[in-house]
Amino acid sequence: MMRAIFAGLLLLFQTNAPSNPASQAARQWRRQHERAIVDEFVSLLAIPNVSNDRANIQRNAELIAKMMEKRGITSKLVSLPGANPVVFGEIKTPGASRTVVFYAHYDGQPLDPKEWASPPFTPTLRDKPVEDNGQTIPLPGTGTPFNPEWRLYARGAADDKAPIIAILTAIDAIRSAGLKMKSNIKFAFEGEEEAGSTNLEKILTANKELFSGDVWLGCDGPVHQTRSQSITFGSRGISTVDITVYGPRGELHSGHYGNWAPNPAMMLVQLLASMKDANGRVLVDHFYDGIEPLSETEKRAIAEAPNIDAELMREFWIGSTENAPRKLAELITLPSLNIRGMASSRIGNQASNVIPATASVTIDMRLVPGMEVRETADRLIEHIRKQGFYVVDKEPNAEIRRAHPRVALVVRKGGESPHRISMDLPISQEVIRTVESARGPVVKIPNSGGTGPDVATRVLRIPEIGIPIGNHDNNQHSFNENLRLQNLWDGIELMAALLTM
Amino acid sequence: MMRAIFAGLLLLFQTNAPSNPASQAARQWRRQHERAIVDEFVSLLAIPNVSNDRANIQRNAELIAKMMEKRGITSKLVSLPGANPVVFGEIKTPGASRTVVFYAHYDGQPLDPKEWASPPFTPTLRDKPVEDNGQTIPLPGTGTPFNPEWRLYARGAADDKAPIIAILTAIDAIRSAGLKMKSNIKFAFEGEEEAGSTNLEKILTANKELFSGDVWLGCDGPVHQTRSQSITFGSRGISTVDITVYGPRGELHSGHYGNWAPNPAMMLVQLLASMKDANGRVLVDHFYDGIEPLSETEKRAIAEAPNIDAELMREFWIGSTENAPRKLAELITLPSLNIRGMASSRIGNQASNVIPATASVTIDMRLVPGMEVRETADRLIEHIRKQGFYVVDKEPNAEIRRAHPRVALVVRKGGESPHRISMDLPISQEVIRTVESARGPVVKIPNSGGTGPDVATRVLRIPEIGIPIGNHDNNQHSFNENLRLQNLWDGIELMAALLTM
Repeated sequence: MMRAIFAGLLLLFQTNAPSNPASQAARQWRRQHERAIVDEFVSLLAIPNVSNDRANIQRNAELIAKMMEKRGITSKLVSLPGANPVVFGEIKTPGASRTVVFYAHYDGQPLDPKEWASPPFTPTLRDKPVEDNGQTIPLPGTGTPFNPEWRLYARGAADDKAPIIAILTAIDAIRSAGLKMKSNIKFAFEGEEEAGSTNLEKILTANKELFSGDVWLGCDGPVHQTRSQSITFGSRGISTVDITVYGPRGELHSGHYGNWAPNPAMMLVQLLASMKDANGRVLVDHFYDGIEPLSETEKRAIAEAPNIDAELMREFWIGSTENAPRKLAELITLPSLNIRGMASSRIGNQASNVIPATASVTIDMRLVPGMEVRETADRLIEHIRKQGFYVVDKEPNAEIRRAHPRVALVVRKGGESPHRISMDLPISQEVIRTVESARGPVVKIPNSGGTGPDVATRVLRIPEIGIPIGNHDNNQHSFNENLRLQNLWDGIELMAALLTM
Repeated sequence: MMRAIFAGLLLLFQTNAPSNPASQAARQWRRQHERAIVDEFVSLLAIPNVSNDRANIQRNAELIAKMMEKRGITSKLVSLPGANPVVFGEIKTPGASRTVVFYAHYDGQPLDPKEWASPPFTPTLRDKPVEDNGQTIPLPGTGTPFNPEWRLYARGAADDKAPIIAILTAIDAIRSAGLKMKSNIKFAFEGEEEAGSTNLEKILTANKELFSGDVWLGCDGPVHQTRSQSITFGSRGISTVDITVYGPRGELHSGHYGNWAPNPAMMLVQLLASMKDANGRVLVDHFYDGIEPLSETEKRAIAEAPNIDAELMREFWIGSTENAPRKLAELITLPSLNIRGMASSRIGNQASNVIPATASVTIDMRLVPGMEVRETADRLIEHIRKQGFYVVDKEPNAEIRRAHPRVALVVRKGGESPHRISMDLPISQEVIRTVESARGPVVKIPNSGGTGPDVATRVLRIPEIGIPIGNHDNNQHSFNENLRLQNLWDGIELMAALLTM
């Protein structure tokens, strides 16, 4: 549906011939080799890639290394005991003073094959999305063009093996056209991103020299919902807490004690309602203190971003938004306080005639630069105290519960820091220019709303910029993950431009 | 624990020899026949009595009828197709112009035998409560007195076979002492109270003449927590609703959309928080309108009721109460609005980084005389509208959800009317005097906090008065249900007084 609806906006952003010579060469090469490109992609997608499937993870890594070697690229698997290997590759460019590191990951989300329309590791071409009753079709013969709206279904098709194939294909195209690179190029293709990048920081720390460079291009995630190319310069952080408030020791009969025994669900809703006003502004004292203001460039980028809010509201069946009339593109550069879930006793036909014993909630707060994980949780805890709660960090005993009218257990679940590099940095501006030379006007996102990695910045001290290629409707992390072929074609042209930057 | 703690209060209310001659005769008879009384009780408790176990329900009913016949009491089983029989019995008293109907029920709550310390239908004597490590002991030989603190464990021991045995034993004692009855006596022992008295109204309607009388004594439930005898003149009603509020069509990523997509859990907590103030007063307009005021007698009864609030707070581990400083005895004569449970997405380690799609709550409102089931739900629904919600009574479709900033599905789950008869009625005053002549000062409760039957009033147009005999700590409705023997002994004396009223 989104596909059809955005058709109008799409036209505004669709490119014709790219101005970038490497992108032009990539387009020509791709048109001549569509079947071979897809065959190579299929061979990679056919290897199961769930992080804890160590044997197949190894096969994936070895195949990618072999694909590099076939192209004369020095490669090796870099690992640590217990870790899935990072596939490292390097192209040295004589006379180059700059190194561009391309990051992607070859592992995929865990899955249940029963949910899939076709087996997740049997890459399957379909003429339309499964949701639109798309049918399986055979790969066309060599020389016959693929319809760019066809989709390839497999775990990892979009998230995140597509950039690996796009990069390798772009290298073929660059060489075939006799174009030269200007920078040294490195590849870091991770094998456990979907398991939380458990070992990436350790691997980079142990191999700082090997992975160092001047800019880290994170080739992951989907492009904008309008199909426009996007570039992301950071992401929100997160701080998560679990809160439980207490009523009677056990559930009490709501007739015998209702109107007298304190109801923990009522206490919790009064507490939570105090955290935000009716329009979505967070009422926790100092919550917005110290936030780094957006630069003029970032503000302009937000103003220029396509306004898809009305369409998303339609898609999501919602009749209002928080913090209206400010739009989504701006709001993700501000922090949020979100109820992930809450629970107290039972509801509906499972409900009993009781006053519950406890009521619990999980809250995540998305952070923007200038905010810290621990300090933000501290401010929330202080707010809970101001609402009259005695706050504990472990299960309160009878004495504590008897001694205080309101008791809240608050458990900090940790989080991740926000990060954002300036769009005004020379490298930021150069990446924007390069991407636009390949793909036309791009949507420039100061920071994504979600939380993303900044391990390169933390360990290697180099700026990270997000360069996605997948379609937004790729079913990432869910069943029936797929890549729209036009996104792969566009990705090859994009990578060709970035490789010759 | 409650047992030990209330020792002081208990002394105030403990009786010595009863002034009522029938009660005196009952005490003497009981002292001479303890083993025989317990044997008869054990024979009744040994028959499983879960409502849907039709074969055993029939055996229970037949045994009770046989116990009546053994005493020369006319009895019969009154039923309807598909219903468990009501055991009817009748003692006609020459010259009597008044008929007293004793109600009890012989069925018990469903159970899981695995939870019980001893098999629920193998009545087991213990020297102390199971919770205090009470041990199984054999029944003492005939002539050897039972320790009155011993307890008999079985489903139905307290709820509600004990009154049946107490009544039948009291009749033996009255006759043995050559005392005369002054009223006609009827018995209505129901067999599906724990299944919601599904057919009682129909059976009474079909047999109005048979069950008619001047007062209906509901012999069910526990006495006061202080062990004092209590009498109840009504009960609160109830009106229950389920509410669901809506966010996005499906759960959304809290990073990508947090701060923009409306969070249904936040909407729900704001709605619920608007329903009560910090001290527990309900803020729904007109909620308290039309409530029948308490009479001076009822107010005095509440003032005279033992104040157990501080002790209950200790027992329940609570540090505050709603509507403080008013005490529980008063508060159950006022209506309540209670959250039974609520749910939205998942919490704790099961929580995902999402904005939930829906949030739901189940609310019960306890009603007092002057309030109505439907009208009270109407007032709540009007309150929800005033908070900006578009209220629907079935699952809202996409168009409705898109058209309104806030949508709430409210499902009325029905309820029961409140009822309360005046303590100033001559029959009320006579019952109070009679009970006090057997048991000393009683706790007079205008209405119980819970919801109780008023079918006799509705169908037969006769006043109902609640006369419990079970210990408050009988584990009613749970596993390890038990009756403290002193409560059976007291019950026999109490029933002797009421039978000769």
